[in-house]
Order: sequence, then C-alpha cells, then structure tokens
Amino acid sequence: MDNINQKALEMHRKNRGKIEVKGKVPIENKDDLSLAYTPGVGHVSSEIGKNKELARELTLKGNSVAIVSDGSAILGLGNLGAEAAIPVMEGKAALFKRFADIDAFPICLSTQDAEEIIKTVKNIAPVFGGVNLEDISAPRCFEIERRLREELPIPVMHDDQHGTAVVVLAGVINSMKLAGLEKEKAKIVVSGAGAAGTAVAKIMLDYGFKDIVVLDSKGIINKERGDLSPDKKYLSETTNPRGISGGLAGAVKGADIFIGVSKPGILTGDMVRAMNARPVIFALANPVPEIMPDIAKEAGAFIVATGRSDFPNQVNNVLSFPGIFRGALDNGIKQFDDKMFIVAAEKLAAFVKNPSVDKILPSVFEKGVTEAVAAAIKD
Amino acid sequence: MDNINQKALEMHRKNRGKIEVKGKVPIENKDDLSLAYTPGVGHVSSEIGKNKELARELTLKGNSVAIVSDGSAILGLGNLGAEAAIPVMEGKAALFKRFADIDAFPICLSTQDAEEIIKTVKNIAPVFGGVNLEDISAPRCFEIERRLREELPIPVMHDDQHGTAVVVLAGVINSMKLAGLEKEKAKIVVSGAGAAGTAVAKIMLDYGFKDIVVLDSKGIINKERGDLSPDKKYLSETTNPRGISGGLAGAVKGADIFIGVSKPGILTGDMVRAMNARPVIFALANPVPEIMPDIAKEAGAFIVATGRSDFPNQVNNVLSFPGIFRGALDNGIKQFDDKMFIVAAEKLAAFVKNPSVDKILPSVFEKGVTEAVAAAIKD
Repeated sequence: MDNINQKALEMHRKNRGKIEVKGKVPIENKDDLSLAYTPGVGHVSSEIGKNKELARELTLKGNSVAIVSDGSAILGLGNLGAEAAIPVMEGKAALFKRFADIDAFPICLSTQDAEEIIKTVKNIAPVFGGVNLEDISAPRCFEIERRLREELPIPVMHDDQHGTAVVVLAGVINSMKLAGLEKEKAKIVVSGAGAAGTAVAKIMLDYGFKDIVVLDSKGIINKERGDLSPDKKYLSETTNPRGISGGLAGAVKGADIFIGVSKPGILTGDMVRAMNARPVIFALANPVPEIMPDIAKEAGAFIVATGRSDFPNQVNNVLSFPGIFRGALDNGIKQFDDKMFIVAAEKLAAFVKNPSVDKILPSVFEKGVTEAVAAAIKD
Repeated sequence: MDNINQKALEMHRKNRGKIEVKGKVPIENKDDLSLAYTPGVGHVSSEIGKNKELARELTLKGNSVAIVSDGSAILGLGNLGAEAAIPVMEGKAALFKRFADIDAFPICLSTQDAEEIIKTVKNIAPVFGGVNLEDISAPRCFEIERRLREELPIPVMHDDQHGTAVVVLAGVINSMKLAGLEKEKAKIVVSGAGAAGTAVAKIMLDYGFKDIVVLDSKGIINKERGDLSPDKKYLSETTNPRGISGGLAGAVKGADIFIGVSKPGILTGDMVRAMNARPVIFALANPVPEIMPDIAKEAGAFIVATGRSDFPNQVNNVLSFPGIFRGALDNGIKQFDDKMFIVAAEKLAAFVKNPSVDKILPSVFEKGVTEAVAAAIKD
C-alpha cells in the first residue's frame, strides 16, 4: 500500500494530473481558424441562439458530463475540501473517457452549502449533457440530487448512491441464482445508511425484496428511532418489516445476504456463522472491508464480494457509471428514473454468462459492459 | 461568407464540437487503475488535503483555465444566451490548447446577474489555474472582473478588454515608429466605449498617451455628460484634455490615430482626409470594419489594421491571450496587474523584427509569439 501511494504520488506529479482538454479539429491555417473560430463560429452561435436544442448536435454538450464534488466525503477519507477532491474527479473523468468515450470535466466546489451547490450547478449546466455528483456527504447529497433532478433539463446522478446500488444489485441477482434464494423470502441486512447504503436499500426495495434491515452507526433503523433524518425516516417506514431493533449481531442472525457499506472489520466470523445457509457477503468498505474474504469463507460464507481488485467479485462503480451516462447521452433521456437503474443492474447481471461463486460480476476491463448497461438507460 | 457559414455549420455538426477531454495516463489494467484511481488516488487527495497548494503540482489545476461567458455579448451578435456561447468558448478552448498547450474548458452560465456570476465563478474556481472572462457585456464585465480579481487567488482576465488592448497597443507601438509619432504629442481617437474601447483607452493612458478622445454611441465622452456609467465617468475624468464635445467627425479632425471598436462603416474617407499627416487607422469592428481598408488607403491612410484575416495587419486576440495565460501559469502569478499587459504589448510589438505598414503585428501562426508574450506576465 505504501508502495502504491508513493507510485501514485509520483505519477500525478510527473503528469501534473491525468486529463487534458484537446482540440479535435485542425487549426493550422487561416481557413481552419475561420471555421473553428471567427467568423464561421458566429453562424453556429446564431443557429443555436434560435434553437438552443441544437447545442447537443453542434457542440461538446452532446457528449459532456460535469463531475461535481464539494470534497465533503472524498473516498473513505472524509471532508478534505475542494482541492483534495480534484485528483479523484480527474481520475473519474479519465475513466469516463476510457470506458464510455465521454468528455467529462471535474467541477470541484469551494462551497458545501446545499442551496449554493444547487444554484452553482444550475448556473454552469448549459455546457453539459449530464451531471455526475460525487463524494458529497449524506444527507445533503439526497436533497441536492433530488432538487437538481427536478430543476435541470439534463440527467443528474449521484454516483455514490446509484452507481454503487446498480453494481450491488447486479451482484445480488447473480448471487441469488447461485445460492437458490428468492427475493420474496430472502433476508437482507444493509450495514451503513449513508449515500451508498440508503441507495442500496432503496433499489433492493424497488426490486422487490421484502425483508430488508438497515443499520446506521447507532444500530438498526426502525420506527421507534427518534433521531432520524428524512431519508432514514423513509427507510424506517419501508424496511424492517419484523420491527427488530438492536445491533449488527442481532440483525444478521438468520439473514441470507449481508451488504456492508460501512466500516472495516465490523462483521465477525461468528456473525457469519449465525447467518442462514449459504451466506452471501458484500463487504464493501474500502480499502479494508467489513470482513476479510478469508475469514468470511472460513466461517462458511458462500459468496464474498468486496470493493477491492485483489479479491474475486470486485464491486466497482466503473461497471455502472460509464454505461449509465453513455446511455443517457445516446438515448437523449431528459432525466434519470430509478427504474432505469434496476434495468441497468439486470443487464449487468445478465452480462455474466456463467456466474459462479467467484464471478458474480464482470471484471471492469471486459469489453461490452458499458454498452450492456447503456442499453438500459432509455425512456 | 455564406460558404464559410455553411462549412462551419457542417464542421461543427460532423465533429459534435471542437474539444474533447482525454486521459493522459494509461488505464489498461488493474495496476493502472490503482494508481490513477483507487486506492492510490486517495494518498494524492490526502496530501492535497494537508496542503492545498499541492493541487498545482499534482492535478490539472497547474495548467487549466476556465473560459467563462454568460452569452450576453457573443462576438458582434449580441445577447444570445449561454447555449449560443458554447461554440465560441469551445473554439477558444481549442485555441488555448493549440497556441499555449493550456487545458481550458468552457463554462457557459445560465445567469446574467453580476453577483450570481461572481459567486458561481468563485465556487468553481478550485479546479482552475486561471479564469478567462469572455463575451460578457459592459458595464457588468468591469465589475465582474474587478471583483473576481480582488476575491480569487488565481489570475482573472476579461479577454475582450485586455486581450484586445494588448494587441492594439502592440500595433500602435509599431505604427508610431513607422509614422514618426510620439506618445506625448499624438492625438488618439477611440470609437466605442464598451469592454474593448474602455480597456484600449485605459492601456493607452497607462502607456503614456496624453491626448485621447473616447466616443460612445452618444458622442464624445467629456465631463459635461451627465449620463455616464462609473467606467465612462472615469474616462471623462482621465481623457479628452482639450474638453471637446460632439461627434466622430469633429473628434478625428487633426487626429493621428483612429481606433474603432464600434460599428461598421462609421468612418468615412472624408474623415480620414481630415486627420493629421500619416493617419493610422485601426478599424476593428468585425466582420465589417468602421472603414474598408481600400477606402481608407484611398483617403490617405498610412497604416490600416482590421480584425479580419483577409487584410494585412490583423488585430487578433490569439496573439495575446494564449501567451498571457501561459505566462500566468508558468510564472505562478497570483493576479494580473495592468502593468503586465503593457509589457506584453511591448514584447508583442518587439516580436516583429522589421515592422512595415503592412506588418505591424505578427501573424497568428508565427512560432514564438506565445512565448514572447508569456515572458511579460510575471511578478
């Protein structure tokens, strides 16, 4: 890890970042200039002035995404601020290009006020075909995404929520086939009720799971809890049908699927042993998961997925966000709809032709993943 | 012109714009991913979190410029709005890359409120190393630039003002040599008191010209005028030492240099004939100048410059803005200072080794222009 850190620092220093903005038309003589810039560009502007929808055909807007962060929840590192968010957003822009040929640009905000963020994103929206919100802490991320979806004419998605939820659901769909589970009967535990946990719980509900129990840092979320933010309150009303309370050990007892988007090491071998037959474990805290795969396996886990690339079954948003935005841009959707994310998860799951306990998801470099997911994002 | 318009439209449609955002590090396997993205990027973020100045060394911030417009004054076309501004700003981004290897990105704003623009630019500033304001109408452009220069820790320049002023002053410096004029005695007329005209008048004052007369659409600006915005009021107090009033014909009578950044065809042959010996004419209205070069020459003009590439002496901001921002980024200046623009004009003028009446400025494709101008922009 020290080695990777040092190498990463050197690579960033040597290249001064990871993306560049390049011209894609020649500018080598006066004729080129007269088409790419004045006077020719004036006619293009006039045409768009008459019909602003033409911007999608005549400018980068047809293929551009703003990657917006306020630096309040950078990876697992916390609130490090706008400048510290740049390397992550720049990396994300590089991934957008690499996996979906999308021209994405990092927008790192010096404000963490929700209203101010909403206003700023609306003000800069004209040049973009979509908005990817990233690393914005809960619960502000929910309100910011909801409002921007309502108020902007371009699709807006908080990747930490839906990008993660799509990949988790895809992995769960294949895991259920392998473990012989049915969504009407399976018992699910979601540990963590931040951006990812909340979105995972919601997509599982929408998909048709009936018995989901969600925990935050204070324990199981239920109707008796008086300390809940609006989104947790929603979870208290829609999950936990058995009305249980307490901590993680009680929650996982007899459960079929554990999904952790919380903290390193909180799931013990004994807890796995207390789960139902063929326990399915998604231990997604990164870089140190809720339980290490070898310990989970030893305790009887049937399938283990993590966020890491050095174990089988990596849950990586790179499997979802490039295709989601590729589809949004190509299919000209006005706004995302949560149902699209379920279809995206189904397409991603179906992309794995022969799922096995060590292969519930495609690897990020498999060709065709982006296209498979993109096909789901249409009106 | 119809032909260029049609060709420009086709070129924009075929390419869907003129810039793209490309990765500049390989992402071909898990090792690449672990350096460009997680987990390696986390260490880079942590380091910047501890010292945000490192963003200039480790991210695109060291080489990036925001091209900000609200679409209120697009070329000579007027207030066409944010979407219509995109082709111009995208073209500008392509020019930044082509002429200065700068990674510039178009930010086209859906607001035209000065306070809102200031706030938005401040909110998105962290990822940028500089801000190029563009095609924002006067008088808001003055206040917006002034405030952003005061309140942002990165250099901010309104190109329609200073980019133009630098090239005009460079052309004037070489014209004076050829015409045998002295700045203490020369009589200058500036027609137009928008962004460009105001900046041209100010740089000429700063350079040491004593007798400058500025006109807006209502005539000569003087102390008697009661209808002046703050910036025009400043001009009324600092220009027009002879206290003249009236229109263009009176203003140019006996003048040495005419600088038009105003309207097509307003300077007549008779007006040129009424100027001093060896009249120098900068007729920069675009695409149709204040006077066509052949008419001006026929009336005795010694030097004629226009904004067009199909006549000699093209006054083109491409001669200035790439070098100005290249210098700003390379030399790590905190903010522009108007004196830097004078030095830039002097360097640009000196770049022309043997000025002649048909060559007072370099052509935009001459190698070394950017570097020459960049050398001027340092503390």
